[in-house]
Amino acid sequence: MPRPSSREEVVAAAQDRFHRRGYHASGVKDITDAAGLPKGSFYNYFASKEDMAIETLRRYGQSRQLHRLGDQAVPPLQRVSEHFEFLRADVVNFGIGYGCMFGNFAIETSEHSEALRTFVREALGRWVGALAGALRDAQARGELPAGRDVDLLAAALVRAWQGALLHARVLGDPAPLDEFETGTLEPLLAKEKA
Amino acid sequence: MPRPSSREEVVAAAQDRFHRRGYHASGVKDITDAAGLPKGSFYNYFASKEDMAIETLRRYGQSRQLHRLGDQAVPPLQRVSEHFEFLRADVVNFGIGYGCMFGNFAIETSEHSEALRTFVREALGRWVGALAGALRDAQARGELPAGRDVDLLAAALVRAWQGALLHARVLGDPAPLDEFETGTLEPLLAKEKA
Repeated sequence: MPRPSSREEVVAAAQDRFHRRGYHASGVKDITDAAGLPKGSFYNYFASKEDMAIETLRRYGQSRQLHRLGDQAVPPLQRVSEHFEFLRADVVNFGIGYGCMFGNFAIETSEHSEALRTFVREALGRWVGALAGALRDAQARGELPAGRDVDLLAAALVRAWQGALLHARVLGDPAPLDEFETGTLEPLLAKEKA
Repeated sequence: MPRPSSREEVVAAAQDRFHRRGYHASGVKDITDAAGLPKGSFYNYFASKEDMAIETLRRYGQSRQLHRLGDQAVPPLQRVSEHFEFLRADVVNFGIGYGCMFGNFAIETSEHSEALRTFVREALGRWVGALAGALRDAQARGELPAGRDVDLLAAALVRAWQGALLHARVLGDPAPLDEFETGTLEPLLAKEKA
């Protein structure tokens, strides 16, 4: 019976490698080496590299703290701002050069694994949905115009964020994340003038 | 002396492979096989896989037709709309599952090759610059408010487009590209009401 902590070590090493180096550039042996375990032990925990990748994406999704977008104790547009501030801090802390794990997998694995593509598609859907929920709350409070399509707005914000992150990565500079705030988030959330 | 056409065959095969399968998933042998040439012939044309990738990115950049953004015979905001319509048609024609080659390389190779990262950074800079030029022309004609930061706006549009393309890829559906138009391009270009 393998120790539970060894599986954790493999998942933690995989998540770090996949996020920093990419899926194709990280072999199973790199990951088990990083976890200090023999390569053969990998198959005690996962049926395949793809299965392990799904587990790392699931954990990455949990770390996005989407539940905070539904926190009724916080005014809805404040939740939206805080969400992107949280993501910004997380990206800068982890390393501006490594991007969003969902975006990375979307680009690197969509043509290679239907299971990974499906997981990323659903994860992005949950993200857009959670953001749309906060925008819908804002609309109910009159902080956004009643006629505004909040699903379209939420999708626009998530996509613009991911594009900003891609540029931040290439530039090695978080400036595009600040420009997302002033150039996209603020103008798209501005109340239309009467 | 190698036939000039063989080099072209290698570059065309490389561009297709890199765009459809990614940089890491396309080996030199895959590429020379696709071009119908022996693997060893590759080094007649390129010093390295990285060098060949830069050539494919250079050609991809040319195919974006950025010069049309500066065409003074066309009203400037029409140039901007036509630019994104052109890109949309190109993406759909090539295959919605393959994304933007600059975005793909940004994510897949930034941590692996300083030369590729630099090329992509400069290519994205030229794209944002060409778009900002058209927006500046629009501003000069009073089609955008005088105080608007057109460099920030151009960057926001390119990044939002790349995020939309990422979602289109994961969904296998061009809908996010249409949503870019209604959810981002039109609202960000709308003249502020008085």
